[in-house]
Amino acid sequence: MEKTKVAVLGATGSVGQRFIQLLDNHPYFEVAYLQASEKSAGQTYGQVMQSRWKVSSQIPEYARGMVITTPNSKETKEAVLAFSGLDSSIAGEVETQYAEAGITIISNSKNHRMDPNVPILSAEVNPEHLEILAKQSTPGKIITNSNCTIMGVTISLKPLQDLFGIETVFLFSMQAVSGAGYPGVPSMDILGNVVPHIGGEEEKAEIEPQKCLGKVEGDRIVSADFKISAHCNRVAVFDGHTVCVSAKFKKKPLDSEILEAWRYFSGEPQKLGLPNAPNPPILYREEADRPQPRLDLETGNGMTTVIGRLRPDPILDWKWVVLSHNTIRGAAGAAILNAELLIKKGYVRPKSS
Amino acid sequence: MEKTKVAVLGATGSVGQRFIQLLDNHPYFEVAYLQASEKSAGQTYGQVMQSRWKVSSQIPEYARGMVITTPNSKETKEAVLAFSGLDSSIAGEVETQYAEAGITIISNSKNHRMDPNVPILSAEVNPEHLEILAKQSTPGKIITNSNCTIMGVTISLKPLQDLFGIETVFLFSMQAVSGAGYPGVPSMDILGNVVPHIGGEEEKAEIEPQKCLGKVEGDRIVSADFKISAHCNRVAVFDGHTVCVSAKFKKKPLDSEILEAWRYFSGEPQKLGLPNAPNPPILYREEADRPQPRLDLETGNGMTTVIGRLRPDPILDWKWVVLSHNTIRGAAGAAILNAELLIKKGYVRPKSS
Amino acid sequence: MEKTKVAVLGATGSVGQRFIQLLDNHPYFEVAYLQASEKSAGQTYGQVMQSRWKVSSQIPEYARGMVITTPNSKETKEAVLAFSGLDSSIAGEVETQYAEAGITIISNSKNHRMDPNVPILSAEVNPEHLEILAKQSTPGKIITNSNCTIMGVTISLKPLQDLFGIETVFLFSMQAVSGAGYPGVPSMDILGNVVPHIGGEEEKAEIEPQKCLGKVEGDRIVSADFKISAHCNRVAVFDGHTVCVSAKFKKKPLDSEILEAWRYFSGEPQKLGLPNAPNPPILYREEADRPQPRLDLETGNGMTTVIGRLRPDPILDWKWVVLSHNTIRGAAGAAILNAELLIKKGYVRPKSS
Amino acid sequence: MEKTKVAVLGATGSVGQRFIQLLDNHPYFEVAYLQASEKSAGQTYGQVMQSRWKVSSQIPEYARGMVITTPNSKETKEAVLAFSGLDSSIAGEVETQYAEAGITIISNSKNHRMDPNVPILSAEVNPEHLEILAKQSTPGKIITNSNCTIMGVTISLKPLQDLFGIETVFLFSMQAVSGAGYPGVPSMDILGNVVPHIGGEEEKAEIEPQKCLGKVEGDRIVSADFKISAHCNRVAVFDGHTVCVSAKFKKKPLDSEILEAWRYFSGEPQKLGLPNAPNPPILYREEADRPQPRLDLETGNGMTTVIGRLRPDPILDWKWVVLSHNTIRGAAGAAILNAELLIKKGYVRPKSS
Repeated sequence: MEKTKVAVLGATGSVGQRFIQLLDNHPYFEVAYLQASEKSAGQTYGQVMQSRWKVSSQIPEYARGMVITTPNSKETKEAVLAFSGLDSSIAGEVETQYAEAGITIISNSKNHRMDPNVPILSAEVNPEHLEILAKQSTPGKIITNSNCTIMGVTISLKPLQDLFGIETVFLFSMQAVSGAGYPGVPSMDILGNVVPHIGGEEEKAEIEPQKCLGKVEGDRIVSADFKISAHCNRVAVFDGHTVCVSAKFKKKPLDSEILEAWRYFSGEPQKLGLPNAPNPPILYREEADRPQPRLDLETGNGMTTVIGRLRPDPILDWKWVVLSHNTIRGAAGAAILNAELLIKKGYVRPKSS
Repeated sequence: MEKTKVAVLGATGSVGQRFIQLLDNHPYFEVAYLQASEKSAGQTYGQVMQSRWKVSSQIPEYARGMVITTPNSKETKEAVLAFSGLDSSIAGEVETQYAEAGITIISNSKNHRMDPNVPILSAEVNPEHLEILAKQSTPGKIITNSNCTIMGVTISLKPLQDLFGIETVFLFSMQAVSGAGYPGVPSMDILGNVVPHIGGEEEKAEIEPQKCLGKVEGDRIVSADFKISAHCNRVAVFDGHTVCVSAKFKKKPLDSEILEAWRYFSGEPQKLGLPNAPNPPILYREEADRPQPRLDLETGNGMTTVIGRLRPDPILDWKWVVLSHNTIRGAAGAAILNAELLIKKGYVRPKSS
Repeated sequence: MEKTKVAVLGATGSVGQRFIQLLDNHPYFEVAYLQASEKSAGQTYGQVMQSRWKVSSQIPEYARGMVITTPNSKETKEAVLAFSGLDSSIAGEVETQYAEAGITIISNSKNHRMDPNVPILSAEVNPEHLEILAKQSTPGKIITNSNCTIMGVTISLKPLQDLFGIETVFLFSMQAVSGAGYPGVPSMDILGNVVPHIGGEEEKAEIEPQKCLGKVEGDRIVSADFKISAHCNRVAVFDGHTVCVSAKFKKKPLDSEILEAWRYFSGEPQKLGLPNAPNPPILYREEADRPQPRLDLETGNGMTTVIGRLRPDPILDWKWVVLSHNTIRGAAGAAILNAELLIKKGYVRPKSS
Repeated sequence: MEKTKVAVLGATGSVGQRFIQLLDNHPYFEVAYLQASEKSAGQTYGQVMQSRWKVSSQIPEYARGMVITTPNSKETKEAVLAFSGLDSSIAGEVETQYAEAGITIISNSKNHRMDPNVPILSAEVNPEHLEILAKQSTPGKIITNSNCTIMGVTISLKPLQDLFGIETVFLFSMQAVSGAGYPGVPSMDILGNVVPHIGGEEEKAEIEPQKCLGKVEGDRIVSADFKISAHCNRVAVFDGHTVCVSAKFKKKPLDSEILEAWRYFSGEPQKLGLPNAPNPPILYREEADRPQPRLDLETGNGMTTVIGRLRPDPILDWKWVVLSHNTIRGAAGAAILNAELLIKKGYVRPKSS
């Protein structure tokens, strides 16, 4: 199988580093461009990252010697796909340019998420949303990830929405510092502390799951009709967002029905055997005090959503806890899984040489 | 004013240490007995505590030379009041014995909290519950604190319950390790981690606020009739429980009405000028990211409840964040404030010599 | 006593905030100017600091309404003294300008520390170095603090140097994040981690103590002639630098002689009863595992140097551990104590009005 | 190759868990016995460990169903080797019994380390010490690991001792909480704190490296003749001991000679291709601020010793920083590597069936 050439936008940032790591020896993709701001351009990735690489494994060999360029769709000619970890202050415009130039964008940024014809794609949850791409007018298409906080939550809701219908959801998050990038959260703000506010996060958490769980109707995606109330907090954890969930269903399930729905949940990535498809996509832990970032974060190489503590909710129906790896499942890993789905479904093809 | 002699039960534990600290030079009380388990009995407090004192100030002089005894109501003859920081495994029985021996118990333990004629007393919230003491058959009376997690929450709800009536409440806590006592939470469990479970905590959080906000009817306290759903979590914070709250009211208030209710809230402790009465009892912070344990915990010497982030809730009416010092306002400080109220209201008198 | 008007330079930074806090109601000083960069100038201190104040007490009332100005010696006419918490990138030049304008500078910056006629003043250690001020040619004088890391170490060495003479010293520091200012150390770098490097720190730690313990000879201060080897590390502590010390003496003392030297150590600040003079200046703790930041940092309101674990060193003579509050004793508190000494010794006088 | 049956003593503890993890699918060894205290005996490992497994990967399948027994050499008949993670309060006696019963012990406990005919074996450092086993009178032999703190330090010293001779060494450690086992260090002692004392640790650190770097002379191991001064500290790190080192050599090397010695260092494990031999055994990092636990701990699956910051020492010759994974290279991994060496060198053979 010929590899598809890809670009990584925002290659020096936190999400970008995860892209570099996870694309090492990828069976479908060959990283042809590493792109970042002017400060880094013209230097090799190894030089620039020597003191900035924050992933606890070495910089992959393939990336060390590559020369960083600035994002410029014209000079990214050989790329068919671009993984974007750009900051939202510039992502919107750059991503549009790339799409116009025929490069399909797999984005982690919020800018295009709520565009009516752009899917918030979670490969196990809503692969059928890919049909909306036909409604995008540009030759390259834009596909977004959801916000990292609600990624695992949405996966936990998907089989329940299908079977029982969701009416209302409360979310309380305890989010890792890596979610704010680097340098991100100052240590003086978070050591021995909790910060009960993350700018713009609750707003995203209250609308994105419904879009991800919605339906394509004509030229737009219509969000599911349930309501979410979110409280988002920063805690002294490196990687891994823990979210407490309370939910009310249209048809109240038994706990055994919920557990079964999670146990047998499987999606397109699993059926198609995509390289980064976690197996299982959802793991339910029986212990009284799980999931925990320390112990459960690496489940399925960071791609499995780990759930625990299903119990009755005195006001709504049920409550539980979800853990998701924010820079893998919640960002770079999910984006790569989305790209794998695009390849396998034929939405994207390597350029014929 | 003659000082009232008191005993501290469980004097070597976390809550006990706070009692020792906060009773130093107290205008109403003289610590006459320090009581703990057999392991410590017969030694001076200074000897026993040299490597176990975990409060960041010195052991007060008055306590250093006192010889620890085991809890025994007969040998605690001169005490009129006992502050109990005993572990719940023994607190129930010991406290009953003391009450039978005529010593009034101010307890931090859960054992008697839900007894129909025992108040969960929060001095600003429900001083009128003291009338139920007349229904206790023992010569000494038992008064309890609420669980530390819901102390601040209940204070934040009190003026709103009075004015608007509460219908439902969601609580999501991020609790400090000191709440588990010493040695308590192993560092391997909490460093860089979150534990989404605290044994028995949610159960208490879902029933105690209603009792505290309830009414005396005949020989029992009848709980207020709203429902609570609680998610309790342990985080890597030393002192200070942060709680996210979402609430629905019987009569939906404006945000300005809520802010005003908190601003003008004041109770018996403030009116009577009790030594440990915080002023104000509630402080609302305007900043977008407060309250935080690091910055707000010492407000009012740890006795003020600090609130922030009042904003609309998409499902219920309003949401906000509450911070309360768990070993001061949530334990020893609240207990001492309760005892001050008992003295000033004449429920307890120094023994005539 | 008429108060002396002072300016605080770098008022919005970490050290500046401590100055604002510690100068609240100071018996000698009245803060007349708060100075910071152009970004903050023209706004009130309260406005600028609402989300930047990181000290766990409120912004003092006196400072809230003051309008921040940029450092400009000409417009700081009424100030006799200026406390400088400026960043070293600009401190050198600004401090010189102020001194030329007749304003005496109490600096925390490294820029002038090694100037031959500028003392590194530690009020209990080398008050006699003030005579060198006469050799400075400017109408205002420049006095510096030592680096925060070696402040407590130098105090622990002072009485030993006097009695036994020091030959060699090994220092190994574990330093708090507040030492790097705000935003300073990114949380991704220090949560659950140790960083065994602090830029420029070892270089300072290896020469400043000798100057502080040196002698005025003619128009220069001649450093003491012992050698230091320093290893400086950043750890996940908020405030408080812990330093392990191994030392060899010219005349080897008994441990009892060292303990006695520390116990009876007292300096000019104690004799003159300066407002911020800690009493005692050195506290030796007998416990096996002290000092610790958590438990000992607030000793003497953060001004006492806490020592523990004196024991034989298998290679040199003795080893011990020193804890010092880096933003109080190691910065703002020490600077204010220095200023109090200047006032009391008559080096600085309020401007006659 | 027939697998050798082994027992794991202390299988439920921190080191025991690492043994279980690292022996999963081991090419030489088959775990035949899991042994622990009476509390756990009779239950399956999966049952007992459900809430006590603290390694961030699943309990291996092979271990889940195994029934735990108490240490009893008679009922451990099929085992040829036993890996001991027993607590030192009982390790000494149990290990002797096993050796008498013909089972060779690979121990992490301090009890037998300083016995004259028991090697402190570090497979790359002193494989020639195995010849002393012939002087042990029991049919099974006892081999110990060094203390976890000095494991990496000793490896960093080995090639330097061979080439230049060591005269004196200062060690300053910052040690992870996992080194104290579970529950081990209470979170109230270490969150945001440093504890400058670890019971018995400095004593071990000051004598074990010399024995490991010593020579077999007749029926005893004679320690190398240099001196060590150690300061041991506990910090808020989960895994990974960081040690600052200052050293003086008999023949002072150039920095390039030291770097070369480390770069080309290789030992028996590498030559023999042992399954857990790290390659390279030593990695020197060029960055100014490395090694760090967060970034470097997993190097060589936790078996590589990572060094950085080689620079001149103002008093001795050179200083540097060493990082070693305390529960892998400093305990279970090193023990397994030692056992692999025993197998490959023919000191231990599978029992003929």
